[in-house]
Amino acid sequence: MSIFDQIEKPTLLLDAGKARRNLHRMAEKARRLGVRFRPHFKTHQSAEIGEWFRLEGVKAITVSSVNMAAYFARSGWQDITIAFSANLRQVRQIRELAAQVHLELLVESGEAASYLQESLSAPVDVWIKVDSGAGRTGLPWTDIEAIASLALQIDQSSNLQLRGILTHAGHTYWAKTPQNVRRLTAESVGRMLQVKRRLLSAGLVNTEVSVGDTPGCSLSDDFGGVNEIRPGNFIFFDAEQYAVGACAVEDIAVAVACPVVAKHPERNEAVIYGGAIHLSKECMPEDGRMIYGKVALPSGNGWSQPLAGAYVDRLSQEHGLLHLEGEDLGRLRIGDLVCILPVHSCLTVQVMGEYLTLDGHLIRTLNKNA
Amino acid sequence: MSIFDQIEKPTLLLDAGKARRNLHRMAEKARRLGVRFRPHFKTHQSAEIGEWFRLEGVKAITVSSVNMAAYFARSGWQDITIAFSANLRQVRQIRELAAQVHLELLVESGEAASYLQESLSAPVDVWIKVDSGAGRTGLPWTDIEAIASLALQIDQSSNLQLRGILTHAGHTYWAKTPQNVRRLTAESVGRMLQVKRRLLSAGLVNTEVSVGDTPGCSLSDDFGGVNEIRPGNFIFFDAEQYAVGACAVEDIAVAVACPVVAKHPERNEAVIYGGAIHLSKECMPEDGRMIYGKVALPSGNGWSQPLAGAYVDRLSQEHGLLHLEGEDLGRLRIGDLVCILPVHSCLTVQVMGEYLTLDGHLIRTLNKNA
Repeated sequence: MSIFDQIEKPTLLLDAGKARRNLHRMAEKARRLGVRFRPHFKTHQSAEIGEWFRLEGVKAITVSSVNMAAYFARSGWQDITIAFSANLRQVRQIRELAAQVHLELLVESGEAASYLQESLSAPVDVWIKVDSGAGRTGLPWTDIEAIASLALQIDQSSNLQLRGILTHAGHTYWAKTPQNVRRLTAESVGRMLQVKRRLLSAGLVNTEVSVGDTPGCSLSDDFGGVNEIRPGNFIFFDAEQYAVGACAVEDIAVAVACPVVAKHPERNEAVIYGGAIHLSKECMPEDGRMIYGKVALPSGNGWSQPLAGAYVDRLSQEHGLLHLEGEDLGRLRIGDLVCILPVHSCLTVQVMGEYLTLDGHLIRTLNKNA
Repeated sequence: MSIFDQIEKPTLLLDAGKARRNLHRMAEKARRLGVRFRPHFKTHQSAEIGEWFRLEGVKAITVSSVNMAAYFARSGWQDITIAFSANLRQVRQIRELAAQVHLELLVESGEAASYLQESLSAPVDVWIKVDSGAGRTGLPWTDIEAIASLALQIDQSSNLQLRGILTHAGHTYWAKTPQNVRRLTAESVGRMLQVKRRLLSAGLVNTEVSVGDTPGCSLSDDFGGVNEIRPGNFIFFDAEQYAVGACAVEDIAVAVACPVVAKHPERNEAVIYGGAIHLSKECMPEDGRMIYGKVALPSGNGWSQPLAGAYVDRLSQEHGLLHLEGEDLGRLRIGDLVCILPVHSCLTVQVMGEYLTLDGHLIRTLNKNA
């Protein structure tokens, strides 16, 4: 009996073998490069999958919210960075967590640092969030005066201990080619090291450097001077990572199995039970259009290569519209399953909330503890 | 004490007064038009909110999945249409449900009708799903032969009872103006009535007509010949419905309260704790760009009008980037809350999973029964 015989509705499949291979490769790489491996757990969000990391020697993790930190603290993680500029409205929970585990926070303003200094009851490690080119948030790497001033403020705070400078070079996701990813990574790391040197010359000697996005950590080997890397997505990868060259298509470790509910041969489309609430509405450019996923078929106890010329063209709440070449469409019957390789696995995991491994084991995330 | 004093992280606020007013208005309209009101519950997905509908005299409902049907059956609903082309892989659950409540299904192919005929153990009502212009799924209204052939097949099936023809004119969402919505609605209804006449002349006398999308049901009065309407979104509305003119901005009954975590005055941006996992990645065009929500401020025990010139410009997993005019940005402090009016409330409710009413009452959806 194949795993597909038991699937009745949209189901997030996890190929645990692929995921553990992806994990082992990144852990090995960190060892080889001599950098601390502090993987981001926001991708998998699962205590059970977290145990796979422990077996690879991981002791320190990254999360994206206070609640996710509390969840992983409950499953025994003792060294947690919340890689999201501190949410001052959760200072009570931050205080409680900091009393239980070694907690590291991000700050990017004197306003936030002052508030934390006044509200915390015991010292907490903090990183200064630096924008090294992504343009999302953090102090711009060019504004060395603001960074140095914040670093000195933290250095003088009794309740904050300066851990270093941290960045997320998220613009590598849109770099289009491995060469561009490597160039942007080198540029981002170079900027962080330049900031570090300026802080050193201002007398701030304990300044570590933390970086880490999946494209850069997968494709670059140039992390000299960096103390830790924090990739997350690499455990599963997805269509977006494949498109930028961060993984082979065989490395993608998750797919959403979706039943076919209708066929429209006159417009080369099939309709699946599988929409925005199963895949998320994340899209990516491919061949001049935006797509919502790639289309594979069940194959043995896993899934095939993506079908050439096939893609998820549009999504509504529960419907997915697939574009398929005539022969592929002709072979599909209503009630068959297709396997959608998601654009962005982190968001797909978030909306699905649980995984079914290829040997039929259900793994829950923090969003589905029922 | 205001509701905002207890909010620590992204929270889906529900103004129950507005929602119940929206509901009352639509129920009244259906009574006035003399059509059956079978509201779609995929928007609110909550047994508790479902009770508000009962108080308006609603006895029959629409859902978008077998699981949602089972959830509402458990809270006492006895007449349920699953307005999604039947998922043949869930025929066992469909059989169980049909034994408990009056269930209505959608079919759009002979293949699916044959499978249901063979797999069901007792007669179930079915609607033929017709595409009256939206181009998502259903038999094209122009393909009268295929519709009539399927209708005759159903009519002759011992386990299927033909209820009528059903459409969702979802293209009204992109109609841009109330005039266009009314024109598309009249066109869609006209096409359905034309199909009905053709089926009548083929001897199929029990053919009802079911339509219903929120823009059309909100803006049009022209439902002569229609038997039932199935709008859903109207209970909350959202930025998209406001843009098309289906509601006033004061009718929008949900907003996501999000803490400000950083400010970037040099680029007129604030960063909020509130990303794709809180708002969904649904976007809409506004003034030549795509936006992910409109920005309001806490005001008394609710929220203000949207700030002029402000919008959610981009989202990552947990970050939202707001564009704000200088003065508005200047007034915001880190730790303050903003209220984001979502682009598409159905998807925002889905990702959030629970509501906080303005008087501090927590309402769960079927996705968060913990």
